[in-house]
Amino acid sequence: MEVGFLGLGIMGKAMSMNLLKHGFKVTVWNRTLSKCDELVEHGASVCESPAEVIKKCKYTIAMLSDPCAALSVVFDKGGVLEQICEGKGYIDMSTVDAETSLKINEAITGKGGRFVEGPVSGSKKPAEDGQLIILAAGDKALFEESIPAFDVLGKRSFFLGQVGNGAKMKLIVNMIMGSMMNAFSEGLVLADKSGLSSDTLLDILDLGAMTNPMFKGKGPSMNKSSYPPAFPLKHQQKDMRLALALGDENAVSMPVAAAANEAFKKARSLGLGDLDFSAVIEAVKFSRE
Amino acid sequence: MEVGFLGLGIMGKAMSMNLLKHGFKVTVWNRTLSKCDELVEHGASVCESPAEVIKKCKYTIAMLSDPCAALSVVFDKGGVLEQICEGKGYIDMSTVDAETSLKINEAITGKGGRFVEGPVSGSKKPAEDGQLIILAAGDKALFEESIPAFDVLGKRSFFLGQVGNGAKMKLIVNMIMGSMMNAFSEGLVLADKSGLSSDTLLDILDLGAMTNPMFKGKGPSMNKSSYPPAFPLKHQQKDMRLALALGDENAVSMPVAAAANEAFKKARSLGLGDLDFSAVIEAVKFSRE
Amino acid sequence: MEVGFLGLGIMGKAMSMNLLKHGFKVTVWNRTLSKCDELVEHGASVCESPAEVIKKCKYTIAMLSDPCAALSVVFDKGGVLEQICEGKGYIDMSTVDAETSLKINEAITGKGGRFVEGPVSGSKKPAEDGQLIILAAGDKALFEESIPAFDVLGKRSFFLGQVGNGAKMKLIVNMIMGSMMNAFSEGLVLADKSGLSSDTLLDILDLGAMTNPMFKGKGPSMNKSSYPPAFPLKHQQKDMRLALALGDENAVSMPVAAAANEAFKKARSLGLGDLDFSAVIEAVKFSRE
Amino acid sequence: MEVGFLGLGIMGKAMSMNLLKHGFKVTVWNRTLSKCDELVEHGASVCESPAEVIKKCKYTIAMLSDPCAALSVVFDKGGVLEQICEGKGYIDMSTVDAETSLKINEAITGKGGRFVEGPVSGSKKPAEDGQLIILAAGDKALFEESIPAFDVLGKRSFFLGQVGNGAKMKLIVNMIMGSMMNAFSEGLVLADKSGLSSDTLLDILDLGAMTNPMFKGKGPSMNKSSYPPAFPLKHQQKDMRLALALGDENAVSMPVAAAANEAFKKARSLGLGDLDFSAVIEAVKFSRE
Repeated sequence: MEVGFLGLGIMGKAMSMNLLKHGFKVTVWNRTLSKCDELVEHGASVCESPAEVIKKCKYTIAMLSDPCAALSVVFDKGGVLEQICEGKGYIDMSTVDAETSLKINEAITGKGGRFVEGPVSGSKKPAEDGQLIILAAGDKALFEESIPAFDVLGKRSFFLGQVGNGAKMKLIVNMIMGSMMNAFSEGLVLADKSGLSSDTLLDILDLGAMTNPMFKGKGPSMNKSSYPPAFPLKHQQKDMRLALALGDENAVSMPVAAAANEAFKKARSLGLGDLDFSAVIEAVKFSRE
Repeated sequence: MEVGFLGLGIMGKAMSMNLLKHGFKVTVWNRTLSKCDELVEHGASVCESPAEVIKKCKYTIAMLSDPCAALSVVFDKGGVLEQICEGKGYIDMSTVDAETSLKINEAITGKGGRFVEGPVSGSKKPAEDGQLIILAAGDKALFEESIPAFDVLGKRSFFLGQVGNGAKMKLIVNMIMGSMMNAFSEGLVLADKSGLSSDTLLDILDLGAMTNPMFKGKGPSMNKSSYPPAFPLKHQQKDMRLALALGDENAVSMPVAAAANEAFKKARSLGLGDLDFSAVIEAVKFSRE
Repeated sequence: MEVGFLGLGIMGKAMSMNLLKHGFKVTVWNRTLSKCDELVEHGASVCESPAEVIKKCKYTIAMLSDPCAALSVVFDKGGVLEQICEGKGYIDMSTVDAETSLKINEAITGKGGRFVEGPVSGSKKPAEDGQLIILAAGDKALFEESIPAFDVLGKRSFFLGQVGNGAKMKLIVNMIMGSMMNAFSEGLVLADKSGLSSDTLLDILDLGAMTNPMFKGKGPSMNKSSYPPAFPLKHQQKDMRLALALGDENAVSMPVAAAANEAFKKARSLGLGDLDFSAVIEAVKFSRE
Repeated sequence: MEVGFLGLGIMGKAMSMNLLKHGFKVTVWNRTLSKCDELVEHGASVCESPAEVIKKCKYTIAMLSDPCAALSVVFDKGGVLEQICEGKGYIDMSTVDAETSLKINEAITGKGGRFVEGPVSGSKKPAEDGQLIILAAGDKALFEESIPAFDVLGKRSFFLGQVGNGAKMKLIVNMIMGSMMNAFSEGLVLADKSGLSSDTLLDILDLGAMTNPMFKGKGPSMNKSSYPPAFPLKHQQKDMRLALALGDENAVSMPVAAAANEAFKKARSLGLGDLDFSAVIEAVKFSRE
């Protein structure tokens, strides 16, 4: 199977490499072309614009850094729109809001192309290991044709219906994550301030019904006040805000998520926005006593 | 090793049975004596009062339903205090507040006895399987002498320092649980009201960094609005309140736990107090549209 | 002084009538022209488009129903932009968001015109009585030239600096109002459920340091579960959301406003969005016991 | 009319002085007897114990600093209980919890005496001016006989039914006050961080439907970060906690009060407990940017 691949950041590079390793013919493009070199050494072809990739390949996957980049790759000169046409499929796996996704969808399908949004759950390590979770939505037939690629990139792919649903599902997952992180932080601080060991609390949690990889992975470093940014706090807070906005649209009252969101905002005001989102514990800890 | 065992409710019966199966000589007592019969069939001896059990055994474990029962077994006529003395150890594994525990400790040690509080994390099934988590505190030497019994009853036992710490640690664990349950509930309802499948959300969560036995165990029944009471909502809410009071004592602000507590209170006002604590999702769901 | 006046809804009619009564020469326009009749009887002139009003008058005030109407009156055919030019001033007193205001400002000043935004605090009655509070921002000189008109329309006018600040200030005032309404609602319900009289609570509040016209005005009807819409709950909730968004922008954590916002959302989900915002008390009251 | 008066702190001294000025014969007692001197100069008699005051007077009013002092004056040697008997009335105007009040009531009525609890709303200045608000409950006939005294001490007295209701009503009033103070604080900080003047916000609020003596009185000093303790933050937080506990008892969910309570706890952890409760704004303000 032959696929195009736009965007070779941390995620995109790991993903396109996996496709190569599994026998896909891959044609890559990246804004900074030199980033393509390593992929070429492993057998990839290169094009000089997104439009050229689309022209060459029936299926093109994109993995871009943000909504702005995702729009630019489609709408700018030399962009996807110039060559997309009937028979071609465009799969955007970038994390974007539903509105951006709908805009891209409209443009692609307006030219006769097919579109799938496929944001992923998981960061660098799962991308390298082909263990992402893919939250796809849009053109059902294109989704099905993309399964061989998705099987290489992720451990599971979901088809969630109309365009926008992938983005929404991801927000909901991240909202639960943000509230859980606050619940966890409050517990660790309460243990400590009550004269108990927060490390022992980790051990106890690990043995019970709430044990989960996030607590196990982040707890020990949180107890050491170390927050290397796997998922920056400011992005987590942005996702909380967007999830709350989704609740607003649908008249769902979510007081726990709202409280968690305000805690993340407090953490931002304490200058922690660029640290890992687990740094929200600092907002709970903070005192002058 | 010979041990006394006071209280043969759901938990106590499973626990004393485990001790018998592992070769302990067990002398039991229960307010309703007929409940001892099954244990006797498996080799237990019976006494007619807590005092008699204490008299007979060097170590006595208690597993009573609430603080009131825990106090009564110690202080009432025929109670533990009548026979406790130097050389004897009393291990109360009931779930009680720190104050109750301290009161019992004072009385026991006042007579020369030794005391360990050992509330457990885990309910019926882990009790039967000897997979409880034991949060012990108090007399360190007695704790160490009790390890053979704890090893049968639980998969892990922790020694947490002075009496009261076991109770506090349990509150903190339950507080995290209550906030997590609310985070989970809000996510499931938001998915549903946003036109996404809350069952798919369960599948996605299950594959990611937040996967945990509680979500896996309770999610499917929550999506079917079924809440068979494993841990009644009103007890969960009480523990949230007590954990918040512990935070109050130590000047720890916990806005997420506070919001979760108010959601449990709303659920109580909706008549859901006797259902499982996962029924808090009904307070999130509730609407007139 | 001669002024144009665009928009003769409940607010605009009362305001332009006040200008006439105080000796201003007023030229009016309204989308439904027949609404101008009453004003003409009191001496107003009429034009057939916003552009004509602008052409005729050095100063034109607008009071439109929402951001959409405010934009349309400026940008559509026959709109303000067609005639605005150096020497002319446009004062938009509609309640719009900062973004809309900035857009209008840019267009007006791009043509050499001058712009003031002047959202008001106060509804029908204060408009009729000339007792509005005017939150103006934008062109300082135009603001000063407008004072004779503002003195007729309101009891006080504030100049708040750059365009957008009027809209922001209004959001902040409404945010405080929404949180206060929730504080009040929780108190009334708590009194009632605790076996105290919520009417007596009103009397007590009225005598103390918290007495305010809102509690006095709305309390008695809230205790009778009556919520005739002076300010619809869904608009109050929208303003809470926008104020929280303003806090998000500036990293201000506002947990009380966030909790109040979620209560308003719950009220919306209970079908109360079109009632007065004091109906949020129904979300507090709601129980099944 | 002749009355006894126990307790001559800031409040009690001002109150007993008012009684003297209005022609009451007053017999006073205070733990530190020298504090009685000023009253004696104005015509008061003195007794050496609460019991003696009770013996001498048909009606005795108490105004003590806290529940502990209120209990001590009744139950200790030389206390009220030694002389209270049929025909005598005891009116405790101290601020105590419902439980303390019930305990005193039981003891007094057990001896045949009559009891009214009458906590007040208002601090030093209203006490001096005879402008307190009296929240009375208990013996209705005694309440009515006390009205001449209450008319001197306060601007209004309420009879709220059974003993405990006075204490509860006061908690509810203070809960509303605490939430309002947080709403106000969040608004002031949001204005400031959004580039608006928080002093102008005060002016705008003062002109609108939310204007109230508390905002007017405390706003200007809050904007100057000055918090001379009229009502200490730690006491306000304690009242919030007790009001939330009252809600817990009656299954009333109060998310806004709960969020406000957590903000006061955060303020305590920042070392602000002894300042005025308006210092909670510091918890909102706090940032590292």
